[in-house]
Amino acid sequence: MNTEEVANKVVELVRKQAWYEALDTLYDDNIVSVEAYSMGGGSPETHGKEGVRGKVDWWVNAMEVHSFDAKGPFVGHDRFVVQYDADVSDKKTKERRRMSEVGVYTVKNGKIVREEFLPSAS
Amino acid sequence: MNTEEVANKVVELVRKQAWYEALDTLYDDNIVSVEAYSMGGGSPETHGKEGVRGKVDWWVNAMEVHSFDAKGPFVGHDRFVVQYDADVSDKKTKERRRMSEVGVYTVKNGKIVREEFLPSAS
Repeated sequence: MNTEEVANKVVELVRKQAWYEALDTLYDDNIVSVEAYSMGGGSPETHGKEGVRGKVDWWVNAMEVHSFDAKGPFVGHDRFVVQYDADVSDKKTKERRRMSEVGVYTVKNGKIVREEFLPSAS
Repeated sequence: MNTEEVANKVVELVRKQAWYEALDTLYDDNIVSVEAYSMGGGSPETHGKEGVRGKVDWWVNAMEVHSFDAKGPFVGHDRFVVQYDADVSDKKTKERRRMSEVGVYTVKNGKIVREEFLPSAS
């Protein structure tokens, strides 16, 4: 798949909240996943597909998703961006919040090799 | 300025369409500016502040801007993203169109060293 095809597939799967299907079909084994902030003071970078699977497991277990919208994709050469607006509750604390962020993805040989999430600062 | 301060300043200046002020105050001399598509078959990359000034000159001379909205910024470590929705007319052909794209910016030592524009593919 070229960059635009991968990008469209990400948007399609995210809208279905098909996180594991996205991981298994679109991600390179050596994916580097970068958060703006690290959880618990660790590294903001996660390396490898199994590391990202751990992040997906955490997300699915921790969050009740009321809505998850994806806008885009915005597509360049080997890079694309998707803008997300989510409405979620922490299952444990019941705290509900809206999240607005973008994902910046880099594609190589038809697979996502890097993803970086940037939260809205506005 | 840190990444978030540069990002907020970009949004502020773009909303005022203060392109030259943005260039002169926020851009590194060795800026690399990347378009998704090259104009006229040339390189999609422009190197250096004076090259980018040429792009701004072209834009200001060619386009009548009816509206130019900026959403964001979305801010990470050394990177930020702004989403643009513009309504413009080509001054020569009078063709009017809506443009939706994101800019992905990289900041180093308080200056923008790289910008990359990705048009909406949806």
